[in-house]
Amino acid sequence: MIGAVVEGDPEVIISAPAKIEEAGPGSITFLANPAYEHHLYTTGASAVLVGLDFTPREAVSSTLLRVADVYGTVSNLLAVYQQDEAAKTKREVSAHAAVDPSATLGENVRIGKFSVVESGASIGADTVILDQVYVGPNVSIGKNCVLYPGVRVLRGCVLGDDCILHANVVVGGDGFGFAPDPETGRYNKVPQIGNVVIHDRVEIGASTTIDRATMGATVIHSGVKLDNLIQVAHNVEIGENTVIAALAGIAGSAKIGKNCRIGGQVGIGGHCKLADGTQVQAQSGVINNITKPGAKLGGSPHMHYPDYLRSYAVFKHLPSVVAKLRKEIMELKGRMGE
Amino acid sequence: MIGAVVEGDPEVIISAPAKIEEAGPGSITFLANPAYEHHLYTTGASAVLVGLDFTPREAVSSTLLRVADVYGTVSNLLAVYQQDEAAKTKREVSAHAAVDPSATLGENVRIGKFSVVESGASIGADTVILDQVYVGPNVSIGKNCVLYPGVRVLRGCVLGDDCILHANVVVGGDGFGFAPDPETGRYNKVPQIGNVVIHDRVEIGASTTIDRATMGATVIHSGVKLDNLIQVAHNVEIGENTVIAALAGIAGSAKIGKNCRIGGQVGIGGHCKLADGTQVQAQSGVINNITKPGAKLGGSPHMHYPDYLRSYAVFKHLPSVVAKLRKEIMELKGRMGE
Amino acid sequence: MIGAVVEGDPEVIISAPAKIEEAGPGSITFLANPAYEHHLYTTGASAVLVGLDFTPREAVSSTLLRVADVYGTVSNLLAVYQQDEAAKTKREVSAHAAVDPSATLGENVRIGKFSVVESGASIGADTVILDQVYVGPNVSIGKNCVLYPGVRVLRGCVLGDDCILHANVVVGGDGFGFAPDPETGRYNKVPQIGNVVIHDRVEIGASTTIDRATMGATVIHSGVKLDNLIQVAHNVEIGENTVIAALAGIAGSAKIGKNCRIGGQVGIGGHCKLADGTQVQAQSGVINNITKPGAKLGGSPHMHYPDYLRSYAVFKHLPSVVAKLRKEIMELKGRMGE
Repeated sequence: MIGAVVEGDPEVIISAPAKIEEAGPGSITFLANPAYEHHLYTTGASAVLVGLDFTPREAVSSTLLRVADVYGTVSNLLAVYQQDEAAKTKREVSAHAAVDPSATLGENVRIGKFSVVESGASIGADTVILDQVYVGPNVSIGKNCVLYPGVRVLRGCVLGDDCILHANVVVGGDGFGFAPDPETGRYNKVPQIGNVVIHDRVEIGASTTIDRATMGATVIHSGVKLDNLIQVAHNVEIGENTVIAALAGIAGSAKIGKNCRIGGQVGIGGHCKLADGTQVQAQSGVINNITKPGAKLGGSPHMHYPDYLRSYAVFKHLPSVVAKLRKEIMELKGRMGE
Repeated sequence: MIGAVVEGDPEVIISAPAKIEEAGPGSITFLANPAYEHHLYTTGASAVLVGLDFTPREAVSSTLLRVADVYGTVSNLLAVYQQDEAAKTKREVSAHAAVDPSATLGENVRIGKFSVVESGASIGADTVILDQVYVGPNVSIGKNCVLYPGVRVLRGCVLGDDCILHANVVVGGDGFGFAPDPETGRYNKVPQIGNVVIHDRVEIGASTTIDRATMGATVIHSGVKLDNLIQVAHNVEIGENTVIAALAGIAGSAKIGKNCRIGGQVGIGGHCKLADGTQVQAQSGVINNITKPGAKLGGSPHMHYPDYLRSYAVFKHLPSVVAKLRKEIMELKGRMGE
Repeated sequence: MIGAVVEGDPEVIISAPAKIEEAGPGSITFLANPAYEHHLYTTGASAVLVGLDFTPREAVSSTLLRVADVYGTVSNLLAVYQQDEAAKTKREVSAHAAVDPSATLGENVRIGKFSVVESGASIGADTVILDQVYVGPNVSIGKNCVLYPGVRVLRGCVLGDDCILHANVVVGGDGFGFAPDPETGRYNKVPQIGNVVIHDRVEIGASTTIDRATMGATVIHSGVKLDNLIQVAHNVEIGENTVIAALAGIAGSAKIGKNCRIGGQVGIGGHCKLADGTQVQAQSGVINNITKPGAKLGGSPHMHYPDYLRSYAVFKHLPSVVAKLRKEIMELKGRMGE
């Protein structure tokens, strides 16, 4: 099935995958990261996937299965064991769902219990809407998507094909736009009449929120992966295959390039443009445009990350660094007759 | 309709608003921020709102509409195009909702599908409760509010008039209160018997959470605007017209004044009091009372924000700053005969 | 009822608890923190709980009730007044719930309106599932738990006894695992086939998300208390009685010891191990293993917290510190004849 070169007992029977440090008889595991190699010599796993050119330093009791791409093979194997809600559920519209007669459902669409599909919405073939989901008026969802329980996609938002939205994601809340009234100090709401457009193969983590644009669209391009509890504000644009970790906040109208990697709890300031391949260290804050592709950023406000680490290394000892300089100056003064 | 002074073709036909850099024929846009002026000379918009005293530097092909308050006019125009869930839905109690017979509903109230209104709750006239919302026992909601899908308002909490709660907001979760048992190291729950009181014209972003008080109330005063994914802990009080950006956390019993502006990912420490008009830069942490109104804060722990930037400017070059001082001291030592 | 030594009117009638600064006639309050002592002399409370050895500095008009453990007594008293959703609701399976016939319900279980219990799930005796909750396939929930509205517990996850999950908590979303395709730059999803195992007496705040493991389990041990809007990534383990404040993010495979205290908005890096009793200051970032129990950490990246404060104290005045050193060196240079 996986095209491996077998080294050891070819008759070994495998029932489930496991992590190398937890694996017991009957399980298959893998070794890709050299830092875990020591587990190979003590694991109880019946079989271990390793690279084609891996050479063990000690005796191995498990059967070795040599493959060209260890991570890829693991991923394929896990998919066999995957039994998620979408895979398990019957392809039907639940009698407990409320689907407006004007909505359009493709072939083989499932709508779960207590889910709502509002007027004018359309849902592509093979898409699974699990329970307690809200699909608002005129929303368009592509083919083969999965929307987990509690997802809310509000009026007029658009999803492409093969997207996964995890539980309690909100797409299309109003952007945070208010016009201050200089006389009263009150803030008047600026209506948010744009939408959110999400392209293909986008995965969005639990409880992440993506606001609709004031005008136009907040755009998430193909292949973007967002972790949990991320805030994406109105009129933001995120480029293809960019990955963002949990609790990051992207302020209004920021434009993030392709293939960027944004760490957890990062803040990207309003209207900032990040070039393709920008990498931002966790907890950093980016406050203006990054024009050079592939920059590595850290600190708040951001700076070149290696420079941040060098400055921070001095900061860690700042009291003694300053005290030493003072002492040397004092000694010089003393020697000059003070 | 907007009382504009027309400069150009008065017969131009407009069908929708758009952003100046994206606008095409038939659309109306606006120019308020001078940083966007260059778009004016290339926009495809049929009409552009500008200030009464704006003087173009180049030729403009669009019709100019001069108004005194550009942002205010845009806001009014957008409202015409606004077609949100609340505006679109029929004013009725859905047959799919579960409303306790002891609940009181004002005139023209809408309750959406799979929403719950528990015993003793009251909902004011013209309020729209969208689908899949939970209104707990003895909750009181004022007039003309909108609660988006997935909102949870728990037992005994109170909302004023004209409030908007976006999808998946939670009002009235238990405060995070535990009494450590010194013998076992376990934490025993301190019951949270207070509530949350939200005054008029408050807007709360998607998935924001506001905890109930241990005793008394967590209070959000009139006109407060909270962005998405904000944590407001038990017994916090937030003053009128204060605005807080996404992912900020306000710890227990903090009291924030009126007209404050709190940036994204800011932390306000427990029991801290912030004077009216305090401004806190994104990602900063406030750890004690701010008594002077209008202070601008940055850093974690906080300091005067301009001072933070000055210190940070030195920090950015800290290794070379220190190296240069060391070198000069070495040179002095050398010249003194070492 | 509370075994107090009464000092003052023993006939005083008490109807409700209140905070000392807000308490009026008929209310009972408490004084445990000396910082609030001044309120004792002005409070309108009819009775005040104080410690056995407390000596007032001024005259007190309220009746004093002396007890050995003020906080513990308050907690017990509040429990009498506690009237939460779980306590109030009828013990029944709502006619508006959808419970799969293959699910197992213990005695006295309540399932609320529009809640779903999927195939193979089991729920222990006396557990209250409130409205609009999702309990996925093969989920196991122990005895005497409370799941507030909007909670989602996905396929195969396990909860112990006496757990409280607040509104909109998500347990068992997919971990954030992707394998980059070096040729296309795309990320392929790594199936997440593990689960989440939560032990006894765990309380989880509103909208917190806990991801399922890639393989094996994400584990939350007994007595852990998590605040609102926290991200717990795949394969994380959190030790007994550890407490984590709001908006913290725990990255993949981190192992946090017992009795740790993690502040708000803290980030814990992937694979980091924290020894028992580690304390992390709000907004800090931990980026490698902490092996010594009881360490106090601050800063991002983390350092010993008292050292962080000392360095930060110099940072606050960094421009003037550096300017002064430069000036002294210049003076020395001048005196040496430059």
